[in-house]
Amino acid sequence: MKKKQTQTEPAITLSAGPVGVYPRVLRAMATPVQYDFDPYFQEFYENVNDKVSEALRIDYPALIMHCEPAPGIEAAAASLISKQDVVLNLASGVYGKGFGYWSARYNKELLEIEVPYNESISPDQVDSMFAKRKDISVVSVVHHDTPSGTINPIEEIGKIVRDNNALLLVDAVSSWGGMNIHPNDCCADIFITGPSKCLGGAPGLTIMAVNERAWQHIDNNKDAPFASALSLSDWRNAWRHDQPFPFTPSVAEMNGLNAVIDNYLEEGPENVWARHRTTASACRAGIRAMGCDLWAVDESIAADTTTAVRIPDGVEDESLRMTARNIFGVAFSSGRNETLGKLLRIGHMGLVAQPIYALIAITALGGALNHLGHNVDTAAGIDAATKAIVKDASA
Amino acid sequence: MKKKQTQTEPAITLSAGPVGVYPRVLRAMATPVQYDFDPYFQEFYENVNDKVSEALRIDYPALIMHCEPAPGIEAAAASLISKQDVVLNLASGVYGKGFGYWSARYNKELLEIEVPYNESISPDQVDSMFAKRKDISVVSVVHHDTPSGTINPIEEIGKIVRDNNALLLVDAVSSWGGMNIHPNDCCADIFITGPSKCLGGAPGLTIMAVNERAWQHIDNNKDAPFASALSLSDWRNAWRHDQPFPFTPSVAEMNGLNAVIDNYLEEGPENVWARHRTTASACRAGIRAMGCDLWAVDESIAADTTTAVRIPDGVEDESLRMTARNIFGVAFSSGRNETLGKLLRIGHMGLVAQPIYALIAITALGGALNHLGHNVDTAAGIDAATKAIVKDASA
Amino acid sequence: MKKKQTQTEPAITLSAGPVGVYPRVLRAMATPVQYDFDPYFQEFYENVNDKVSEALRIDYPALIMHCEPAPGIEAAAASLISKQDVVLNLASGVYGKGFGYWSARYNKELLEIEVPYNESISPDQVDSMFAKRKDISVVSVVHHDTPSGTINPIEEIGKIVRDNNALLLVDAVSSWGGMNIHPNDCCADIFITGPSKCLGGAPGLTIMAVNERAWQHIDNNKDAPFASALSLSDWRNAWRHDQPFPFTPSVAEMNGLNAVIDNYLEEGPENVWARHRTTASACRAGIRAMGCDLWAVDESIAADTTTAVRIPDGVEDESLRMTARNIFGVAFSSGRNETLGKLLRIGHMGLVAQPIYALIAITALGGALNHLGHNVDTAAGIDAATKAIVKDASA
Amino acid sequence: MKKKQTQTEPAITLSAGPVGVYPRVLRAMATPVQYDFDPYFQEFYENVNDKVSEALRIDYPALIMHCEPAPGIEAAAASLISKQDVVLNLASGVYGKGFGYWSARYNKELLEIEVPYNESISPDQVDSMFAKRKDISVVSVVHHDTPSGTINPIEEIGKIVRDNNALLLVDAVSSWGGMNIHPNDCCADIFITGPSKCLGGAPGLTIMAVNERAWQHIDNNKDAPFASALSLSDWRNAWRHDQPFPFTPSVAEMNGLNAVIDNYLEEGPENVWARHRTTASACRAGIRAMGCDLWAVDESIAADTTTAVRIPDGVEDESLRMTARNIFGVAFSSGRNETLGKLLRIGHMGLVAQPIYALIAITALGGALNHLGHNVDTAAGIDAATKAIVKDASA
Repeated sequence: MKKKQTQTEPAITLSAGPVGVYPRVLRAMATPVQYDFDPYFQEFYENVNDKVSEALRIDYPALIMHCEPAPGIEAAAASLISKQDVVLNLASGVYGKGFGYWSARYNKELLEIEVPYNESISPDQVDSMFAKRKDISVVSVVHHDTPSGTINPIEEIGKIVRDNNALLLVDAVSSWGGMNIHPNDCCADIFITGPSKCLGGAPGLTIMAVNERAWQHIDNNKDAPFASALSLSDWRNAWRHDQPFPFTPSVAEMNGLNAVIDNYLEEGPENVWARHRTTASACRAGIRAMGCDLWAVDESIAADTTTAVRIPDGVEDESLRMTARNIFGVAFSSGRNETLGKLLRIGHMGLVAQPIYALIAITALGGALNHLGHNVDTAAGIDAATKAIVKDASA
Repeated sequence: MKKKQTQTEPAITLSAGPVGVYPRVLRAMATPVQYDFDPYFQEFYENVNDKVSEALRIDYPALIMHCEPAPGIEAAAASLISKQDVVLNLASGVYGKGFGYWSARYNKELLEIEVPYNESISPDQVDSMFAKRKDISVVSVVHHDTPSGTINPIEEIGKIVRDNNALLLVDAVSSWGGMNIHPNDCCADIFITGPSKCLGGAPGLTIMAVNERAWQHIDNNKDAPFASALSLSDWRNAWRHDQPFPFTPSVAEMNGLNAVIDNYLEEGPENVWARHRTTASACRAGIRAMGCDLWAVDESIAADTTTAVRIPDGVEDESLRMTARNIFGVAFSSGRNETLGKLLRIGHMGLVAQPIYALIAITALGGALNHLGHNVDTAAGIDAATKAIVKDASA
Repeated sequence: MKKKQTQTEPAITLSAGPVGVYPRVLRAMATPVQYDFDPYFQEFYENVNDKVSEALRIDYPALIMHCEPAPGIEAAAASLISKQDVVLNLASGVYGKGFGYWSARYNKELLEIEVPYNESISPDQVDSMFAKRKDISVVSVVHHDTPSGTINPIEEIGKIVRDNNALLLVDAVSSWGGMNIHPNDCCADIFITGPSKCLGGAPGLTIMAVNERAWQHIDNNKDAPFASALSLSDWRNAWRHDQPFPFTPSVAEMNGLNAVIDNYLEEGPENVWARHRTTASACRAGIRAMGCDLWAVDESIAADTTTAVRIPDGVEDESLRMTARNIFGVAFSSGRNETLGKLLRIGHMGLVAQPIYALIAITALGGALNHLGHNVDTAAGIDAATKAIVKDASA
Repeated sequence: MKKKQTQTEPAITLSAGPVGVYPRVLRAMATPVQYDFDPYFQEFYENVNDKVSEALRIDYPALIMHCEPAPGIEAAAASLISKQDVVLNLASGVYGKGFGYWSARYNKELLEIEVPYNESISPDQVDSMFAKRKDISVVSVVHHDTPSGTINPIEEIGKIVRDNNALLLVDAVSSWGGMNIHPNDCCADIFITGPSKCLGGAPGLTIMAVNERAWQHIDNNKDAPFASALSLSDWRNAWRHDQPFPFTPSVAEMNGLNAVIDNYLEEGPENVWARHRTTASACRAGIRAMGCDLWAVDESIAADTTTAVRIPDGVEDESLRMTARNIFGVAFSSGRNETLGKLLRIGHMGLVAQPIYALIAITALGGALNHLGHNVDTAAGIDAATKAIVKDASA
């Protein structure tokens, strides 16, 4: 009855997430599952929540939702955005654009600034929009739009939003923990992230920072869901050891999250960001030197956590990735929706945010392109990436 | 910064869920997390889905939702029930009653048969209701209403519902896998369960059987959610190795589910049910012999997976559970909402569905009651439970 | 080709070792294995060794041997005992007696004090022997002779040995970590123990405390093995991060040992000993109250880590243990060699050194005896054990 | 008290063992530890032993010793070799030479053929020795002398030994499971290997094939150890479910071994050997193309499981390995004793016997050499290795 697995695992995965999970976190997920109403687990949950707050660098309690960030973001939209809200959605990629669809279910009016998916939103555009529309009450933006591997300047944008007295919702799922960005750095009122990207945890939880301004807005939203998968409020006080959970939390994922955060804090966030940066810089240097193009119009907006490479003309996306996987044992991510087929993504997150993986990526990608008849100069790529690695190691 | 854990774990947990997870399943959850779009994982997911179908004894694909059963049931309500539906909700406990609130968000009209929470729904009541209301299109019922530890006769109810051409939604979260009940046994059109009760898995996934009749109803429901945590349709084809996931599945939970189902099928479902039954019978025999009352009005409606014991007059619920936990190291479950404070629950699920745990329960509960000054005859309880165990072992 | 496992695991194991391993330790054993010559592992090894010294309460480096304690003890005999040594072996059980055979391979002369295997060595006997034989250079004694479940008064014995200027070798494999005994408490020159008994680790390592006096004796023993499984000297400095290992250490076992010691130190040794003592006291009270006899002639010499119960006349050892296992799911240990068939052993070590397991032992043993037609008063046993537990909990 | 770990783990380890352990095996090592005398474990042990026999392709029971192969080989020497034996030891490297020292403790006379440690033993030399010495009763040889990364032609040697009616003892610790070699292929009477090299298990067990001829020789050796860490006989029948263990087996290591063998048999030995061979070939091609020298005088005697690279003049061993580790995150093995400082070893065993790791090795080694001022042509190395990989993938 049982079908046999015919596919084998790739030797090395350099995806844009889910990523390989730190062994310590995998082991933590094998911790015996405790009864959620037992005092032991209730205290444990509060302690984990505290550590998440510490990692987010906020002085109010973090909010953990027991679902992957996509439904977590949907829940944030459903809870925050009301029929009174004019929402400005900033779309520089597939994920940013997608938020607009969720917003539109709840808002009074949806405004949008959209740029080509290899560019980023300019703070000036946001400024101009506010100049025209004083009634914008909520702004939504993705920090790292993963399907493009590009970054928006959310510190500047956040300042503008706050100055205009609107609320800012930030999706930092695939940058937080790999880059130096926190809720307060960008004046986010709701900041959404998760453990399964740069922190090297498993997918299944959403981490949020929801500040007092946002909670008030939610409290005033009479259509905000309750007793629902889409409700933030249900979980607002669930972190307290003396409060019940609205439904059973994902106990094993919490055990994993505990290790994820310990891992991050013990290594030192600055050290973690540095190795993401070094790996990405070396990778980008190599990609360019070998004769490939970055997807981002400008390297300055390329994320430290994902390198998106434009697929050369005449090369087919699927063939390229399968060649890298089947001959060299290295799995890359494809694009998504509008970027699918146009770019290939090399993840630098968690475990593989180590310089050697930049060299592996270049070797495997170069090898695959050459094998498919698209000649690139892998040697130049390796050389440039090596120089970047050596330079950072000597710094 | 890090707070120290002050509470210690109980030596033994006999909860009504989440329950202790089989070691094999815990280890499976520590399997390296694969990229969800990699062919390896896509094939793995399809294989797990197939095995879930086999365990459900259905000949159509099972549906796995990446959330705990509570939001899973909410999603089923949101997807199935439309503004055209007259819903008959059968409420014999807290969970049954709760479904009515979800139904009411979506239905045209909610009818309800409610019985005291220590009784069960009679098929005759359902029959009579259909006689009065030919327009009932959906019936919802909980098999094992966990906060009461009682069972509804869903095979008979299911037959009536099918004969009246309505759809039946069954919550079998805390009975399936511990008792002989499957979607087809009770003519369920949507049958909802999960891995974290009788199957000894972690909480975080919902398992559903949605048959063709139910999918048609959902397809015809123009308000059925899509691109949402509440959408069943989003996931309908996600099990196929050549179809994308609507959002990232909980990879580690899928690794756990794979082991959960293997464990169940390899032990043999009939063997699993038998040890749940023996443990529950022995426990109930002991409870009665020691001078305590079962919560259920009649032992015939007591679940094989949870023994609910009426808390004797003069004994305080919290004190009783904390005494059992602190002196004897055994954690029990309390009631929930209306049953809170009135009963204590001894779980017989998964790992602890072994006769020795019936003896442990009686010893710890008896010891705690006596310690609190409520004299019970623990010796008689042990004796009766032992006799029941020996009888089953000799059978 | 692969044979199917036909035996199932017992629900609960109350053995005298190997015992159930703490989940935390099991997880630690799943830590990625590092290259033993890598600086990371070398530093890790030194740190673990330091923690072992701390747990042994010695101010010199502990010695870890990469084998189970039986070959570890053989190695100690081979390394320490020379053709110049007159060895006094104290034999109050199978293990004590066994040491004499190893000693005899190396010593000049073997003297022995042997008592019936349900009694313990009296310090007066040792004193008298020294009075007669000034030339005794080495004394060997087992603290807890596991096959008998009895304890020797090694603090008093140790003082006598030291006063007579002989060396003392102590086997404390199945008492250290469960009782308050350390090398310096008993003037041991070589103190041998391991992680797989009271500390709830896996079998595969030996922990030793070898003091300077013992090392000098070994250095002077020109027949002491080197480049050998039997050599203590090979490993003397291997703990240092800058020294090589004589052969590959058991890396996974070291990962487990690290967690074993953390677990012990974090819980607090005094707390660990206390729960071993409470469990044993309650168990012994119950055993006697139900009408069974302890193996030990006097309860004062019964170990806190194992309760040896005399098998009643007319009951067959194997039947008794298999009845307890097959009907009640509880596995006990048999005796060994001379004690085999005469006693049954209930382990109180590590994970199961919790009072509830005393009640489980009594219930299962009582149930099994009654089932075999040997009537005991299980109820009285439960009652007496419960009283002992309550008394300790209130203390 | 607890010292903080200051060293971090290398990103990638390419050692000659201990090697990275397969995740499946790590998880298996976290299996709950069972009581060794319980029928469940006794049956399990027999089943594992059967599978080891299958993997060794022998039709008599395998012998598992509960220690690392170094003491395992010592035990084989101690058990097999008697005062009547003339032993011919074949020394083509540090490990081969080392066996002579053990042999000399037990034999009547030690003969030795020794070649430079970058060469291998020629069958002709063995033939000539037998022509001179008809009284040779035991021959000992290492298949893969790991500190040199070189292979001896043991099939031919074995035939000569058998024809001369002597016994052959083979150390195949670091080749078996990675290359096509089995006891019967080389007429070995004692064939010694282990799980922690090519099979990707943890160090801590020795696997042996001891045939009837060898057991007879041992039985006739009146000095063969018993009740000892050095005794093979003690364990001869311990694999049988109805026989006791001479001392406690390493239960967790047995759980690991079970997974190690399943892993090997399920992947298919021929597939496993093929990926070791491809990885080694690609690595050697790259090493030569970049301008480095293999240690082996002739590539035909280079092992498929380790590539030993001669350290270029002017480069210091320790600096080279630490540069590769600290800048590129890749840990290599050094030489051992006579080869220490003269060569660096790249392991191709288990998990990392995948072609991409050949590229990683070349990149990191090339990068480190260049960084130290010794210019090599990494690009040419990558190119040659890539070509070798592509060629094998297309085959």
